[in-house]
Amino acid sequence: MNKNRLEAFSDGVIAIIITIMVLELKVPHEPTFAALSELAPVFLSYVLSFIYVGIYWNNHHHLWQMGKQVNGRILWANLHLLFWLSLLPFATAWSGETSFAELPMAAYGFVLWMAALAYFILVRAMISHHGKESALAVAIGNDFKGIVSLIGYTVAIIVAFFNPLISLGLYAAVAMHWFIPDRRIEKTIGR
Amino acid sequence: MNKNRLEAFSDGVIAIIITIMVLELKVPHEPTFAALSELAPVFLSYVLSFIYVGIYWNNHHHLWQMGKQVNGRILWANLHLLFWLSLLPFATAWSGETSFAELPMAAYGFVLWMAALAYFILVRAMISHHGKESALAVAIGNDFKGIVSLIGYTVAIIVAFFNPLISLGLYAAVAMHWFIPDRRIEKTIGR
Amino acid sequence: MNKNRLEAFSDGVIAIIITIMVLELKVPHEPTFAALSELAPVFLSYVLSFIYVGIYWNNHHHLWQMGKQVNGRILWANLHLLFWLSLLPFATAWSGETSFAELPMAAYGFVLWMAALAYFILVRAMISHHGKESALAVAIGNDFKGIVSLIGYTVAIIVAFFNPLISLGLYAAVAMHWFIPDRRIEKTIGR
Amino acid sequence: MNKNRLEAFSDGVIAIIITIMVLELKVPHEPTFAALSELAPVFLSYVLSFIYVGIYWNNHHHLWQMGKQVNGRILWANLHLLFWLSLLPFATAWSGETSFAELPMAAYGFVLWMAALAYFILVRAMISHHGKESALAVAIGNDFKGIVSLIGYTVAIIVAFFNPLISLGLYAAVAMHWFIPDRRIEKTIGR
Repeated sequence: MNKNRLEAFSDGVIAIIITIMVLELKVPHEPTFAALSELAPVFLSYVLSFIYVGIYWNNHHHLWQMGKQVNGRILWANLHLLFWLSLLPFATAWSGETSFAELPMAAYGFVLWMAALAYFILVRAMISHHGKESALAVAIGNDFKGIVSLIGYTVAIIVAFFNPLISLGLYAAVAMHWFIPDRRIEKTIGR
Repeated sequence: MNKNRLEAFSDGVIAIIITIMVLELKVPHEPTFAALSELAPVFLSYVLSFIYVGIYWNNHHHLWQMGKQVNGRILWANLHLLFWLSLLPFATAWSGETSFAELPMAAYGFVLWMAALAYFILVRAMISHHGKESALAVAIGNDFKGIVSLIGYTVAIIVAFFNPLISLGLYAAVAMHWFIPDRRIEKTIGR
Repeated sequence: MNKNRLEAFSDGVIAIIITIMVLELKVPHEPTFAALSELAPVFLSYVLSFIYVGIYWNNHHHLWQMGKQVNGRILWANLHLLFWLSLLPFATAWSGETSFAELPMAAYGFVLWMAALAYFILVRAMISHHGKESALAVAIGNDFKGIVSLIGYTVAIIVAFFNPLISLGLYAAVAMHWFIPDRRIEKTIGR
Repeated sequence: MNKNRLEAFSDGVIAIIITIMVLELKVPHEPTFAALSELAPVFLSYVLSFIYVGIYWNNHHHLWQMGKQVNGRILWANLHLLFWLSLLPFATAWSGETSFAELPMAAYGFVLWMAALAYFILVRAMISHHGKESALAVAIGNDFKGIVSLIGYTVAIIVAFFNPLISLGLYAAVAMHWFIPDRRIEKTIGR
């Protein structure tokens, strides 16, 4: 089974997810700075989510550089990841609309948590198919960055109920930490 | 004629279908659990339909692994399948909005019925083009799973008018039964 | 310059056009047959436009089987075609919303007219680039089918102001006449 | 690392951007010329933005003809460009909705300015990766056209606050000036 269609389909879904988020930037009827500045929280949440989806696309891209084959389990693990990413526009819009209220910020973290888990499951499914000695398994190694992210999201979800803006800062911090695509894989490819 | 564009176009349409369904999860204005829990039926119908579209994409992927050529009839049979899949977001949203009322649940089943029929017609068009002795025809064999699904949908449509929640359970059961991609083809490829 | 990206981009745009039309099927709040039957004209216009977009995708697919190269003029001729196709969802929704009123039906024909003209310009740009002796030019020959369509649209636009339902019938008739993909090209490829 | 997925993903995002803009053409309830003519400014802004997105797609296409490799920095420079392009539908709709009012026209120019800057950064990232002696670097040369555009946008943004229609004319003029795909690259490929 070949991986090209899986990549193409994932690209399509991710491209749509990243683009439909902008539809939440509702066009104001008034041509004024006041109308524009009301959109600030929605815009800010859009920027953050654009970066997150960009990170996922980048890492997905890097991951499949090393993936050679697909099986039924990998197909579904990939769809499972896309499912959680597809909820990001909702969580983004809810956070923006409510100017980063408690529950929406926790929900945002929950969606990120589940997407990270889904990514982890996908990586495991791919390693178990390609073998523990495969270039992929070696490149991934122990998923330190992934674990740090999960801790970050967990803290942010709890903090959201007390101070959602600190929570927002934590999501931004985790994003920064992922900004650079997965060096582990790049290093292995570069050899 | 080559199959790559047909696959790419189908991937595009299916990627959009699977993603626009999430737009029905209307962003609540209130940042409360009550507002979130009101979305439960819409969310549940989204999950079910995501799985169904995922199943179709998986099976389409498997089918075209074996398909080598395209002709005019196959092109239209494929578009016909995409047409019925494109109605799934509507049926999904209607079911969710009305909290699984009678008619919407029957309509949901009708769309699944027609999509299954369209898939069947596509398979026949491909077998008649590739020949009865082709790997494709051998791999498909007698379409037992497809027939079971049609029976399941038919029962679910009738039951919908009496107890739409049983009907919902039947749609979920058929989805479970398709969850694993078509072993018949996988086995033949594996040889 | 290679044609793959042009095909992929066109597929993406056409896939989106064909799918967003379904968003005009606004989900009714009532789970009743009455609510569903109110959607009949919108649904009917969706079916017709789905077939038209399908025809364009099929013919585009056939055309580019024979096209080998791309230049700046061909790129823009292709974008020009996509522009007019992108207006089809608007014309479709307007026709459906107004239950096939006079002006919307004429507007529908106008969009089809311009799309047909854009297709004609694209074909000319491709022939002038590939040469009058190219397989493409030979396969196209005199564009009888295209001319018949333009006459059909012209009549339908005029008739729309007197009896828009006859006009609808004419659009359906032209669609039927294009249903079968361009035999001229298929024959030449088959040789 | 290969460039195919980057191209495919960019194509997907650009295809969606160019298509969702048409959703701002809200379907009128009345089947009259009056209702249609009210849409004129929205339609005009759609045409202009369609051409701009088309120009970016064309230039992106030309640029990647010469690009051979991708690294993390190029991936993010490309996503950065897509981010600003994704704001064009918003700026377009705002301009159209307010019939080309002062602030929206300035915002439109700001988005174009940032997209042009993002394109410039992408080109620099690609040249620094491929080397100053690469065909890409030679083909780009001194980016005269890009500088002229930035000057045009800057003037248009300032003028927008005094006479937004002159500003609109300037955006149209810059678009005309980019209409023809980048001859510099075409010439180098043609050699």
